[in-house]
Amino acid sequence: MRIARFSIDGNVAFGAVEGDQPDELVLDIIKGIPFADFELSGTKVPLSKVRLLPPVLPNKVVAFGRNYAEHARELGNEVPDAPFAFFKPSTSVIGPGDEIQYPSFSEELHHEAELAVVIGRMCREVPRERVKDVILGYTCANDITARDVQRREKQWARAKGFDSSCPLGPWVETELDPSDLTIQLTVNGAQRQLGRTSEMIHPIEDLIVNISEAMTLLPGDVILTGTPAGVGPLNVGDEVAVTIEGIGTLTNKVVKRG
Amino acid sequence: MRIARFSIDGNVAFGAVEGDQPDELVLDIIKGIPFADFELSGTKVPLSKVRLLPPVLPNKVVAFGRNYAEHARELGNEVPDAPFAFFKPSTSVIGPGDEIQYPSFSEELHHEAELAVVIGRMCREVPRERVKDVILGYTCANDITARDVQRREKQWARAKGFDSSCPLGPWVETELDPSDLTIQLTVNGAQRQLGRTSEMIHPIEDLIVNISEAMTLLPGDVILTGTPAGVGPLNVGDEVAVTIEGIGTLTNKVVKRG
Repeated sequence: MRIARFSIDGNVAFGAVEGDQPDELVLDIIKGIPFADFELSGTKVPLSKVRLLPPVLPNKVVAFGRNYAEHARELGNEVPDAPFAFFKPSTSVIGPGDEIQYPSFSEELHHEAELAVVIGRMCREVPRERVKDVILGYTCANDITARDVQRREKQWARAKGFDSSCPLGPWVETELDPSDLTIQLTVNGAQRQLGRTSEMIHPIEDLIVNISEAMTLLPGDVILTGTPAGVGPLNVGDEVAVTIEGIGTLTNKVVKRG
Repeated sequence: MRIARFSIDGNVAFGAVEGDQPDELVLDIIKGIPFADFELSGTKVPLSKVRLLPPVLPNKVVAFGRNYAEHARELGNEVPDAPFAFFKPSTSVIGPGDEIQYPSFSEELHHEAELAVVIGRMCREVPRERVKDVILGYTCANDITARDVQRREKQWARAKGFDSSCPLGPWVETELDPSDLTIQLTVNGAQRQLGRTSEMIHPIEDLIVNISEAMTLLPGDVILTGTPAGVGPLNVGDEVAVTIEGIGTLTNKVVKRG
């Protein structure tokens, strides 16, 4: 099931996305929230009539660095033995179609296409064999990075945590084997990143064991799993699109911060 | 005014702390929340009858590293030219009297006494002269750190973001000049850290200009301003207390993670 979050006439709701033709998709409005047992209401609205929102409002986004060997090398970094994580705050999250605001303190904004894991239930110290049980589903993410600031500042709160630096969407796919999916990123239609999730150094199970060993994950929290090679600059006016096989496409435009 | 957050009979409320004798303090229950205009209800309960909670539930905690020169040097680090920040997640926050759980993945837990700034209103790109307007007040913090993990992992999400790594409290003092206060930390009554907020390399105004340039701060968000020299180990069974002049004392006990 594809679960979207959207606003219509000032109300926010979750809905199950139905249909195959991009311009004929409809949302079956969910009674309640997708983090518990829920029913479809049977009330349907065309996707074209709503504004899609970030599919979840995470309490925290935990992002793993250098989880694709080729990407680590392209920035001149060693491939780390163990996973390492950083946070992106809830205030950095935007939805599909929202604007990425080019920050005033950077002159080198980069895109990073990533598979995002959405946590479905409160958990900590998750054993490897239970990881599947705590996952609601998967969506696309773009880990927007002020690369110049990242080089200058030892910790990445500003470089990777600024407003609009975490586009998520377009929806959460709940039935998906994430182990070998194509991840692609285009800028103004030209391909810049292409990889497969099977190239992750540390697979999703390891990442969730690693982070949940330290901290409680809450329903709606998001885990970013690293970016494949091909990261590069974004400029004001660019349209950047992340497409993941079996999920869909997350598109955002870069604007000057107003 | 000292504003505490507490639970009594299963309800959570804010209250103004009144009185001078530690064992005779009372809470005048606040109607509404302290992030907007509020009134005191006149209904008073003895502090000894309630459980104090973290004085705020931050959406994010932004912590600045190496903001006291002597502390940077004691860990063999250079004093950074510009401030740099990292996040502690909301799941790391505990209140006064709550237990610090020694994490399973570390063998070197350290204390770091810090002055915490509590944000009072939503803001971004705060000009230096307006910083005072966005601050609700000040409280004590202990930036509990898994020092061994911090050395191993390039980004500090696990080393400084694990559950119970961010004790805050005992309350928020709203009327205080933070520019030259004594910060003291004891372990089992023995002094380990002693410094003055006047020794900060980057004062509070600079820190809030720096972080709000990048991201929106929300009411209840917390800024940690760095720790003075004297950081050192904590062991299971230790009682650690942070005392800041004009605020009060935040005490927590270290226990084995259950």
